[in-house]
Amino acid sequence: MNSYFHFEQHATVGAARRSTFHTPHGPVEMPAFAPVGTLANVKTLEPRDLAELGCELILANTYHLYLRPGHQLVERMGGLHRFMAWPGPILTDSGGYQVFSLAHQRRVDDDGVTFRSHIDGSLHRFTPESVMQIEQALGPDIAMVLDECPDPLDRRYNEQALARTHRWAERCKLAHTRPDQALFGIVQGGIFPDLRQASAAFLAELDFTGYAVGGLAVGETKEQMYQTLDETCPALPADKPRYLMGVGAPEDIFEAVARGIDLFDCVLPTRIARNASLLTPDGRINLRNAKFAEDPRPVQEDCACYTCRTFSRAYLRHLYKANEITALRLGTIHNVYFLLELMRRIRATIEEGTFDDLRAVFLERYQISNQEVRHEQRRRRRATLTGTA
Amino acid sequence: MNSYFHFEQHATVGAARRSTFHTPHGPVEMPAFAPVGTLANVKTLEPRDLAELGCELILANTYHLYLRPGHQLVERMGGLHRFMAWPGPILTDSGGYQVFSLAHQRRVDDDGVTFRSHIDGSLHRFTPESVMQIEQALGPDIAMVLDECPDPLDRRYNEQALARTHRWAERCKLAHTRPDQALFGIVQGGIFPDLRQASAAFLAELDFTGYAVGGLAVGETKEQMYQTLDETCPALPADKPRYLMGVGAPEDIFEAVARGIDLFDCVLPTRIARNASLLTPDGRINLRNAKFAEDPRPVQEDCACYTCRTFSRAYLRHLYKANEITALRLGTIHNVYFLLELMRRIRATIEEGTFDDLRAVFLERYQISNQEVRHEQRRRRRATLTGTA
Repeated sequence: MNSYFHFEQHATVGAARRSTFHTPHGPVEMPAFAPVGTLANVKTLEPRDLAELGCELILANTYHLYLRPGHQLVERMGGLHRFMAWPGPILTDSGGYQVFSLAHQRRVDDDGVTFRSHIDGSLHRFTPESVMQIEQALGPDIAMVLDECPDPLDRRYNEQALARTHRWAERCKLAHTRPDQALFGIVQGGIFPDLRQASAAFLAELDFTGYAVGGLAVGETKEQMYQTLDETCPALPADKPRYLMGVGAPEDIFEAVARGIDLFDCVLPTRIARNASLLTPDGRINLRNAKFAEDPRPVQEDCACYTCRTFSRAYLRHLYKANEITALRLGTIHNVYFLLELMRRIRATIEEGTFDDLRAVFLERYQISNQEVRHEQRRRRRATLTGTA
Repeated sequence: MNSYFHFEQHATVGAARRSTFHTPHGPVEMPAFAPVGTLANVKTLEPRDLAELGCELILANTYHLYLRPGHQLVERMGGLHRFMAWPGPILTDSGGYQVFSLAHQRRVDDDGVTFRSHIDGSLHRFTPESVMQIEQALGPDIAMVLDECPDPLDRRYNEQALARTHRWAERCKLAHTRPDQALFGIVQGGIFPDLRQASAAFLAELDFTGYAVGGLAVGETKEQMYQTLDETCPALPADKPRYLMGVGAPEDIFEAVARGIDLFDCVLPTRIARNASLLTPDGRINLRNAKFAEDPRPVQEDCACYTCRTFSRAYLRHLYKANEITALRLGTIHNVYFLLELMRRIRATIEEGTFDDLRAVFLERYQISNQEVRHEQRRRRRATLTGTA
């Protein structure tokens, strides 16, 4: 921590922590969920919407912004905050995950990774030093180190990748110079406790401002993910924020907070909203379903978001069925609000000491459909096979 | 007029009129522009956006809503206002124009028109009586009579169609019973002064609450359109609102207001926004153009819309180039604001007696590009050939 950043802890319930992470663009109350604004925009939303939803931190993707419009253009336009007109805290990932999942013909060596753009096939190279340069040009409050994202179930690959990820973390730390930007390390090691603990110990020595648990939710079962958190979190510095990358399903958030995670990001609420899938306390509902055709109720009876305050399920179903753009936006507003409101309740109950009750009551009511489980299994299997997630 | 509707005239400059049309859901300050909400939604916008933009009246399409979600469903959900959560005035067209342009295999007879849905090919029939039933079920403040929309340049077709349009107008008047819904007649007759004047005289006898000039902007030149307005407007009742259907280009609005038109609707501002084409006092600009890549200025320097208050051309170009949904919305917000603000200035200058100055200054500065002229010519030629517009 330096004068720009401060991590303040207020209360705990077991391993769950209630804290505030102070950044140059304002505080982030934790546990926090950061919506994903891949291309410097949370899809279908504006900065004023995010503020109204109570969002504090958003994520943007270094890989995508490097390809278009380019980090140098963003820098010339005054940096990410000014470019996208978001006055609050921003976090950028390192692009590592996208290079290992989205880009074509990637070839990793000890110095860095060469890849072809998924947009036009053009050739590019990321090294720890170039990624630090890109993230410093973009100018978020929080930057992530470059890491390698192997299949979490492949022990040999994880051993090899981990050594490289650690050297890259050291080089990122050396290359990073902006005092007004926090640099977070990323623990890897797949589902293997000894590798995770070694990784946590190694990165702790480097004294990052925060620590992410990477490489999860891409091929392992939920039980393996929770187990890995059980084994990893205690090995992380207690006085730094802990970030579980790419996770945003409500049930996973509860389990991860209970194990000591402070920060989440995920495309889930925005992506499923564009597919007519909306989050409710009873689980997801799909608004294209015929049973909602004349349903005068809001998506969620007790929800205070604009969508629920204003429109019936019947109207939203009509918009989704007619492929109206407005449907994608109204669904996104609700889903993002749902998760941010969940985080507010999680924070309040850690303060009050009743987090375990909320967790039990929520998970008892929240139904995960068989279809969702199958879909998630297919998605994770595909992610493991192809290196995408 | 009945107790639900009242047309109040405040000032004139030549033939241009400054007036207020009072409806059950509030007043419409005229000359007015109504954005088009085809499927009970102005694409990409919400009711709160329309209110913020200063919109008073919106249009919805009977043909589209009849096909989906169905007028009876809308009625069971409490009518259009409640269904789409728009508390202000709504106008529905009669579906005639869409049947004659969008639907497949239409066959018109004296009693009505049979057609196949453009969505699923299913067979349907509109008669004056069925359309009145549909519009009364939808429940807008203003309903339009069923009319036939011929090629404006084909004299023989216009003579035949006009007789039928007039009989349909009589039958609509008889079938229409809702006292809280105004029924407007539609003058047809192509570009032929004698037919237009006969049509205006015939419909005036039927004593509609307002009068539309239909069948323009679909195949004739701009000069022929202005000429037709010159010949038609004086034949319309002076104490009723006059509505030029389907027109929304700024230059056409000025010319039509100068000839006594009070109301406009058009998909232009919303449709071209989704194509990255934005309205400015200098004419349209296309934000996909490379010259805007690092342009830090707003779309329009002196514009007070959210888009111009918040974002640079560089950022908007990035969003358009990356096909982000948010771009479509931010462009729509600006274009709709541009036209509504233009109407506010037109109304203010009619009150102040300076409308002719505004018209001269605006049209002097507003450049219509050659590309636009060619595009418009192609569109109109195609519209004439295929019966679409």
